[in-house]
Amino acid sequence: MLATGKTADTDYPVHELIARRWSPYAFDDRPVSQSDLRSLFEAARWAPSSYNEQPWSYIVATKEDREPFECLLSCLVEGNQAWAKRAPVLALGVVSLKFGGNGRDNRAAIHDLGLAAGNLVFEATARGLAVHQMIGILPDKARETYGIPQGHEAWTALAIGYRGNVASLPGPLQQRDSAARQRKKVSEFVFTGSWGSPSPLVAER
Amino acid sequence: MLATGKTADTDYPVHELIARRWSPYAFDDRPVSQSDLRSLFEAARWAPSSYNEQPWSYIVATKEDREPFECLLSCLVEGNQAWAKRAPVLALGVVSLKFGGNGRDNRAAIHDLGLAAGNLVFEATARGLAVHQMIGILPDKARETYGIPQGHEAWTALAIGYRGNVASLPGPLQQRDSAARQRKKVSEFVFTGSWGSPSPLVAER
Repeated sequence: MLATGKTADTDYPVHELIARRWSPYAFDDRPVSQSDLRSLFEAARWAPSSYNEQPWSYIVATKEDREPFECLLSCLVEGNQAWAKRAPVLALGVVSLKFGGNGRDNRAAIHDLGLAAGNLVFEATARGLAVHQMIGILPDKARETYGIPQGHEAWTALAIGYRGNVASLPGPLQQRDSAARQRKKVSEFVFTGSWGSPSPLVAER
Repeated sequence: MLATGKTADTDYPVHELIARRWSPYAFDDRPVSQSDLRSLFEAARWAPSSYNEQPWSYIVATKEDREPFECLLSCLVEGNQAWAKRAPVLALGVVSLKFGGNGRDNRAAIHDLGLAAGNLVFEATARGLAVHQMIGILPDKARETYGIPQGHEAWTALAIGYRGNVASLPGPLQQRDSAARQRKKVSEFVFTGSWGSPSPLVAER
C-alpha cells in the first residue's frame, strides 16, 4: 500500500504543495532523474540567507553508485539507516558556521540551512518526490569521511525519492507512516502583546 | 518604482514561486488581510520538524495597532528599524531550544525554525506578499518585553507586506533593492565523494 491521503487537515487554506508535503519512511526503488536532482538543488540555491552568505552545502549520493551510497548511509545513526537505505538518493546538509568574509559566527547559519532545505523540499513536492529530513547523523564520521573542513559541520541528512510501499517497512515504522499528521493549533504558537497570549490577528472572529 | 523583475535567473528550472520570491526593503502601506495572515501561519504550522517538536513560535504586530507595532519594532537593531518600520506586519520568530518532553537540547530547533519560515514565505509569495527576514534583532530586549521564558529565544524577525516604491527608501537601500540577485553555482555547493568535489549527479553532461 502506498502511503497516500496524508494531505494536511488545515484550519486555514494553504498552498496545496504545503498541504501535500510530508516525510515518509517508505521509499520506492525508482531512481530520481538527473534533471529532477538539478532542480532540487537549484531550488535550495535560491533560498534567502543572512547577508546572502548561502551557508549551505550538500554531499549527495545515489543508490546507482553503490559504494558512495553506502558511505553516505554510514554517516546516519543506525535507526535512520534502517529505512533510509531504501531511498534512491541521500544527501548530507552541511552548514558553514562562520561568515566567509570576516570569520565571525553566523547566528543565522543553521536557520538558513533550514530555509534552503525548505526550498528543496518544496521543489521535490512539486515534482511528485518526497523528502525525509534527519537530524540523527554522525557529524564526526561525516567530517572524517568527506574531509569537511573546520568551521563547517554536517548538520542534517535528507532521504529523497518516491513514496514506497508501507508494507516494506518494519512494523513500528509502518504505524508511523500510516498515522494521522498532528500539529499544534495556530493559537498555541502565534502570540501578540505577550508570550502565550494567542494573537487576535489570526484568531477566529 | 515598484521593485519588480527580480525573478531568479536560474540555471535549472524551479517552481515559479521559488524563482519569484525575494526579500525587499521597500514595503507598501497596504495592510495584510486577516485571512492572509492566518494562512501564512497555517503554512508555518505544517512545516516538518525533528520529532515533530514544532519548536517555532511567533510574536506578531500590525501597524494598525500602533503601540504594539512600535514595541515590536524596537526589538530590531536600528539598521533594520530604518526600513522595517514601513512594513504593515512585523513578527519575531522565537525558537524553543530544548525538547518539551525531556528538556534535552534540540539540535534541530533553529534549523526547524528556518523550515517553518520557509513555508510561511512560500505561502506569502503565493498570495502576492513579500517577506524580508532578519537576524538583526535584540533577543534580550524581546525576552524582557514579551516575557519570553528561559529555554526559548527570539531568533529572527520577519517584515511582511506588499512590495513598495523603491524611491521611498534611503539611497543605499534603493541600490540593494534594485541590484541583481546573486548566488553561488550549484557546482560550488553540491558535492559527491569528497568535500569540494562538484557532484557529477547535478553537473552539466
